[in-house]
Amino acid sequence: MIGQEADVYRQLKQYFSKYITVSDEQTSVFCSKFKHRRTKRGEVLLRAGEVAPYSYFVNKGCLRVYMMDAEGRESTRFLVFENCIGTAFPSFTLQEPSMAYIQSVEPSEILYITHKDFNEMLDTFPVWERIYRIDLEREYIASIRRIESLITMDAKQKYNMLMNTNPSLIQRLPSKIIADYLGISQETLSRLKSKK
Amino acid sequence: MIGQEADVYRQLKQYFSKYITVSDEQTSVFCSKFKHRRTKRGEVLLRAGEVAPYSYFVNKGCLRVYMMDAEGRESTRFLVFENCIGTAFPSFTLQEPSMAYIQSVEPSEILYITHKDFNEMLDTFPVWERIYRIDLEREYIASIRRIESLITMDAKQKYNMLMNTNPSLIQRLPSKIIADYLGISQETLSRLKSKK
Repeated sequence: MIGQEADVYRQLKQYFSKYITVSDEQTSVFCSKFKHRRTKRGEVLLRAGEVAPYSYFVNKGCLRVYMMDAEGRESTRFLVFENCIGTAFPSFTLQEPSMAYIQSVEPSEILYITHKDFNEMLDTFPVWERIYRIDLEREYIASIRRIESLITMDAKQKYNMLMNTNPSLIQRLPSKIIADYLGISQETLSRLKSKK
Repeated sequence: MIGQEADVYRQLKQYFSKYITVSDEQTSVFCSKFKHRRTKRGEVLLRAGEVAPYSYFVNKGCLRVYMMDAEGRESTRFLVFENCIGTAFPSFTLQEPSMAYIQSVEPSEILYITHKDFNEMLDTFPVWERIYRIDLEREYIASIRRIESLITMDAKQKYNMLMNTNPSLIQRLPSKIIADYLGISQETLSRLKSKK
């Protein structure tokens, strides 16, 4: 167990020490709050209407946060990649019913923490509040960039931005999800891909 | 001076104590870092390419954060109303050149703090980090709602959401800015307004 389990937290430990110095003891406490599991391709971790109980750290794979309208059409709001933390944020933070679903896009390996443990750490460890605050700043900036791209860019500009920032995504995920994420049609996406 | 100046910080003091208990001494220190000024209608506080030096608290009026494309077309990214803090967030946080402009939409009364003072308070007062963290969560949630509306709602749904959450805005701001903020055309906006 020691060898196996220690390995499971390797990426999370790096995440904790990415922005500031964290002692080994604190890192051990933080890691102990995260449980480990594997997910199947397409597995739904949260449905709209449920209160998000967990925040997720992705060791391997990808989670997708998406909305579904009355006709069953999906819109991808957010993707959580390796070495990132994510959840249905408004639901997890406010402990209100979620408007979004969370799905494992690929077979994934994840760590997850409960809302209670997450908040207890904020009250107990100022360094945890700092890590979380810096991460929030980065997530908020990413969401501002997303809003900018949605209000100012045309399909080609959005596609080029993704090619510049995360090119592997275009090979890796189904084109339906990519088109959805960019807010463009699948036809437009395949036209843009064929031009490259 | 005492009466006048004390009054200027009344709303900011309420802002500090909105989520958690803050001592009078701490509140006084926080307020002392904010300077006060008035702005004219249309005054530009930050231009694209400049590094945002300040974060703003709005006592009265409204600030607009907007982008401008090569043809001079503006897109409103964000509005900062009374009793809210806002700035060109990526630029202020990362101290990088801004992609956005900041403009005073109405004659406004604002308080502003430098990046250096803002960050020194984070290092000195854990309670300030907590206020900021909670505020970041709320701003991030607002940006997620905005992304959701941009990717899933049609013009009518966006308009109705604004009518439900901030109806006075529609009377108060020029229809160009409202249309822009909603990501719909001015023609569509006036059609929706006339139906009400």
